[in-house]
Amino acid sequence: MSGGTRSVGEIMSQPAESVAHDVPRGLEGVVVAETSIGDVRGLEGFYHYRQYNAVELAEKRSIEDVWYLMHHGELPTASEREAFSAEVAPLRRIPAEVQSALPEIARVASQAPPLDLLRTTLSLFGAALGFRPSLDLSATELHEQAVRVCAVVPTLLCSLYRLQHGLEVVEPRPDLAYAANYLHMMSGEVPSVEHARGVEQYLISTIDHGFNASTFTARVITSTGADLVAAVVGGIGALSGPLHGGAPSRALDMLDAIGTIDKADAWLRDAVERGDRLMGFGHRVYKTDDPRSVMLRSVAERLGGSKVEIAKQVEQRAIDVLAELKPGRKLSTNVEFYAGVVMDTCGVPREMFTPTFASSRVIGWTAHILEQAADNRLIRPSAKYVGPPPPQPVPPAG
Amino acid sequence: MSGGTRSVGEIMSQPAESVAHDVPRGLEGVVVAETSIGDVRGLEGFYHYRQYNAVELAEKRSIEDVWYLMHHGELPTASEREAFSAEVAPLRRIPAEVQSALPEIARVASQAPPLDLLRTTLSLFGAALGFRPSLDLSATELHEQAVRVCAVVPTLLCSLYRLQHGLEVVEPRPDLAYAANYLHMMSGEVPSVEHARGVEQYLISTIDHGFNASTFTARVITSTGADLVAAVVGGIGALSGPLHGGAPSRALDMLDAIGTIDKADAWLRDAVERGDRLMGFGHRVYKTDDPRSVMLRSVAERLGGSKVEIAKQVEQRAIDVLAELKPGRKLSTNVEFYAGVVMDTCGVPREMFTPTFASSRVIGWTAHILEQAADNRLIRPSAKYVGPPPPQPVPPAG
Repeated sequence: MSGGTRSVGEIMSQPAESVAHDVPRGLEGVVVAETSIGDVRGLEGFYHYRQYNAVELAEKRSIEDVWYLMHHGELPTASEREAFSAEVAPLRRIPAEVQSALPEIARVASQAPPLDLLRTTLSLFGAALGFRPSLDLSATELHEQAVRVCAVVPTLLCSLYRLQHGLEVVEPRPDLAYAANYLHMMSGEVPSVEHARGVEQYLISTIDHGFNASTFTARVITSTGADLVAAVVGGIGALSGPLHGGAPSRALDMLDAIGTIDKADAWLRDAVERGDRLMGFGHRVYKTDDPRSVMLRSVAERLGGSKVEIAKQVEQRAIDVLAELKPGRKLSTNVEFYAGVVMDTCGVPREMFTPTFASSRVIGWTAHILEQAADNRLIRPSAKYVGPPPPQPVPPAG
Repeated sequence: MSGGTRSVGEIMSQPAESVAHDVPRGLEGVVVAETSIGDVRGLEGFYHYRQYNAVELAEKRSIEDVWYLMHHGELPTASEREAFSAEVAPLRRIPAEVQSALPEIARVASQAPPLDLLRTTLSLFGAALGFRPSLDLSATELHEQAVRVCAVVPTLLCSLYRLQHGLEVVEPRPDLAYAANYLHMMSGEVPSVEHARGVEQYLISTIDHGFNASTFTARVITSTGADLVAAVVGGIGALSGPLHGGAPSRALDMLDAIGTIDKADAWLRDAVERGDRLMGFGHRVYKTDDPRSVMLRSVAERLGGSKVEIAKQVEQRAIDVLAELKPGRKLSTNVEFYAGVVMDTCGVPREMFTPTFASSRVIGWTAHILEQAADNRLIRPSAKYVGPPPPQPVPPAG
């Protein structure tokens, strides 16, 4: 290996049977597409949506503004913002025919994780509303579908959550902004401005993050010309994997397991020596501080609450223990560590942490779906066959 | 670009921000993994499952044998075959709780394509039965889930088809082999041996085909540790795209539109001159005859039926017209061309062509899911950002 900088494009013209021997693991560092949605600069601890620092957007803007930015490429003017809110508000409602099927689905899968129910009911939403192949739609039609799906996902999640818990479904409120409406549909109560803003900043910070597995899944599915819901449903499936979206509640579980700060050192040392992965630490792309973690720590500090002090102390103790026991591997907290603290403080139950992540990430997925569909080619890679050499004669059935 | 043979592995260690400029379109020819499931040799017109020629398997074996081969890596002995049949037969039944939700789902999405309903109901099946993340399962547990899903998919498809058409659902028959049971659940009648065998050979020939978009989708989702149903649901979504699984009925529609052979030349010439793609011709990987098409043509000839003669004549006329109007681009019929003829002859309605494809391909997907899970690393590629340079200051909201 020369280690030189080469593009995948250099090898793409090889027929499948003549490619070389080395294959990547997990496509790490392999550039598979061009995008103008955003990027992650792992070495700098920086990520951006379009041309803006994502953290700065979370500090200065509403999620509606950032959603508009992701779908349109520009932040909205005042009148565009107004028109967008008017467009979105009615789309928060679940159509009656889909709503009528939710209790039965929640009953049949009463113990299922919320993302599995979202996967099922969003799939039904697409089937019932007749989402046609993206290949057969104009850019405008596909864009309308993207807005519709992003608007309805929080409502589906909160409705299913309440149905699973035997609670009455809370209708979306068109007079509330995105985050306040979300918390209201979940709890039945209008949240404080501070809690709504805390969740909103979390939501903004998790809308997009490079070609992660769920975003890539959505793009691969879109590349077949499939309908937008098929692609989002695939993204939800990928996000449900514990190696992708499944850990924010586990980081909080770890804080609970540690209990008090005087027990942190022994607990962390035991865990690392046992070979356990510390939840909320380390990231494949960031080799320095995860900027989402830095921002969410400051959000957690601003909100106060019972978890923030122990979280900060455990963070520091864990970094020290990891530096001692795993020298040379700098591990920092990732987005999940303080995400759990912020959501818990704002009243989001743990089972809704990953679903809340899904409700923001669907904005990123759909931005990528629109981009993929606008300049599409079927994504169909190759693999290197490493089994016994074919063809061996097929023996007669014994 | 040197054009030399290089592996993706050579570039994988580059940080995302330093990669080069060329990016592939659709990852064509890019080797993304090692596999021992099978391979496609496009230049030779050859594909194989494990160490066996796939066409030879379709000629000599049952789909149960090939399913066993895909999941276990070896063809079954007589006693393994018996045990496998006994394992599969009860798993064809839809669990009562899921069955109870099907009429409502079919009613709500009464006009939806069958794959969208399969996507929805298989997702519900996974949620209701508590399919846990693949990451948390033993190889044996995941294997059992794979068999269960492959067994139930044909039943879900036929039940939904009959519900959408106002027909009574036909229960699976444990005494019938896979293909005969499938046609029986669809039509309510036990098919002839010839028709069951024709469909069976089609099913065997479409179980797997390299790292196509749906297979790759299933592997990407599995790489997050997500549950097996999440991965299969993603695969179904990808397969529903017209650029992937959506064309067998369109090839047959073309034969109908042509009508009689004397009109073929003018019809084909018009279509090619208009720039239309001829349905059932050309393939991204095969640069010579598609071996599936060759086999299915012989199956269609053996079965006879009203469509085979016009199909053969249109095939020849189309090749001649394409050679004349698109010289230098050798286009042959692909799997879809004779697949439609075979299925039509065997009594499968056109709307069930792609679903029938899904019912065999799920065997391939699950073989790949088992392989991915057995030696996993999260699939997380990179992309090249090509938008306006960040960070630009975020303006205050207007």
